[in-house]
Amino acid sequence: MNFEIQILGSSSALPTINRFPTAQILTANEQPYLIDCGEGTQIQMRRFNAKFGKIKHIFISHLHGDHYFGLFGLLSTYNLLGRTEPVNIFADKELENILMSENSPIKYEELSYKLNFFHLPDDTQIIFENKTLTVTAFPLKHRIKTRGFLFKEKKRQVNVIKEKISEYNLSIQQILDLKAGKEIEISGKKFLNTDLTNPAPPQRSFAFCSDTAFNEDIIETIKNVNLLYHEATFSKSDVSNAEKTFHSTAEDAAIMAKKSNAKKLVIGHFSTRYNNPTILLNEAKEIFQNTFLANDGEIFKIEF
Amino acid sequence: MNFEIQILGSSSALPTINRFPTAQILTANEQPYLIDCGEGTQIQMRRFNAKFGKIKHIFISHLHGDHYFGLFGLLSTYNLLGRTEPVNIFADKELENILMSENSPIKYEELSYKLNFFHLPDDTQIIFENKTLTVTAFPLKHRIKTRGFLFKEKKRQVNVIKEKISEYNLSIQQILDLKAGKEIEISGKKFLNTDLTNPAPPQRSFAFCSDTAFNEDIIETIKNVNLLYHEATFSKSDVSNAEKTFHSTAEDAAIMAKKSNAKKLVIGHFSTRYNNPTILLNEAKEIFQNTFLANDGEIFKIEF
Repeated sequence: MNFEIQILGSSSALPTINRFPTAQILTANEQPYLIDCGEGTQIQMRRFNAKFGKIKHIFISHLHGDHYFGLFGLLSTYNLLGRTEPVNIFADKELENILMSENSPIKYEELSYKLNFFHLPDDTQIIFENKTLTVTAFPLKHRIKTRGFLFKEKKRQVNVIKEKISEYNLSIQQILDLKAGKEIEISGKKFLNTDLTNPAPPQRSFAFCSDTAFNEDIIETIKNVNLLYHEATFSKSDVSNAEKTFHSTAEDAAIMAKKSNAKKLVIGHFSTRYNNPTILLNEAKEIFQNTFLANDGEIFKIEF
Repeated sequence: MNFEIQILGSSSALPTINRFPTAQILTANEQPYLIDCGEGTQIQMRRFNAKFGKIKHIFISHLHGDHYFGLFGLLSTYNLLGRTEPVNIFADKELENILMSENSPIKYEELSYKLNFFHLPDDTQIIFENKTLTVTAFPLKHRIKTRGFLFKEKKRQVNVIKEKISEYNLSIQQILDLKAGKEIEISGKKFLNTDLTNPAPPQRSFAFCSDTAFNEDIIETIKNVNLLYHEATFSKSDVSNAEKTFHSTAEDAAIMAKKSNAKKLVIGHFSTRYNNPTILLNEAKEIFQNTFLANDGEIFKIEF
């Protein structure tokens, strides 16, 4: 089952030719979930062959333009393409006001599909779940209300060993019982569940933290995450800018990865003042070796 | 004095990797004027090294998203860069409602500069003029209120011939009189103005017509234009689509160029159904030979 993110935009507020504003797609079990939607997201989706027609759920961290101005074009394009499936938007309630107001750039009554809004809570809460995963929103520290998102695979069932199915000619009911963790009897002989199954793969997780100042309050929530995406707008030499604007340095991001015991760190949301964000990568690696730079189009597979 | 347009977006409503939605910059006498502002316009400006900080005046043809959704990002970027010079927006009054509403994506009270709105009239009128040019707005035929724009250089003064200045040791007052078209006396001898001057260069003009169905009503307005940009969304084989959506075929655009005695035609706003718009170019050239395809980044110098 695939579980991966694709970077669509890795710049901070000012876009560049090579780095669009923030947007990412998390794909889990073939279903893409859009996280933030900066200007030009629909163009990046085409450029990088993302399955943008399959997106049903959009998660918006906060309402600075570089994280949602691409929604207007994307939602319009869905309409032009005659979409009928609803779009579910998880965002601050202010976004519903913007999109549904009388003077909205999107004329709701002309849309070929329904827009459903789910307002993000102030505290840490599961805001979405389906068979594949849960999504938890949690507060970040920024100039306006901002939430991070934790995507976590659900606990999966044990795998019945194929060879055992044929060896004991297991019935469908027996297979279902085994998958549910039960023990079964075959011709009067009791088997342990573990005799006939392999353990379920561990649950993978991905945390998205942007935009935010350094914030240890979220460590419990993202503890042991497989992949942490954390903004790293500034170098340590610009720490006063980071503090002033409620952003993080590359070191901040790395300390967060270390303290939350993340397996891997991807940093992004780079200020355009750095022509080459390798300086940020090096600063982060000093503290957390398994760090990577977000680059537009790049896919990070989330490993077990 | 330069007088040229640069294409920033040449696609119709659905953008592609190589063709962003509609936006163009007309530059006259070093001053850039933005015409339409589809999603990603600020990114295209960076890509093609347009002087986007120098833009003072923005002309929006109509309020379909592919012609103005880039305004949100552009106006935000001006704010982030600390712009203080006002931005003048010429558009349907509905755009002021969108941008200035309580639920606008742009928080006006946070902007570092002033936004001035000039509502486009329903009939054909000069809507802007300065020392360099006049801009005339005129109604096009589309599904919603849409205006074309005619940019016309002002009549310039005659040029005093340099050699004559030294030959007759002309005073500043004499030079000013000559530039104003007067005749002068030198040592009691009368000179014709044309004895000492070269005629002023002719006035160049550029007309922007997008989006629109075929519309002969505008021919008088754009008569003898040096460069006509006319939308050509469809091929003649899709004429029923053109009629249904109030767009033009490439042939329509070419007939407009011919009937208005344009010197040159640039077509754009291509439907994404044509992988290669050369088919549209060929259809137009059958009727109007001096036709060119708009391509993102391309500059068309407007000749005398």
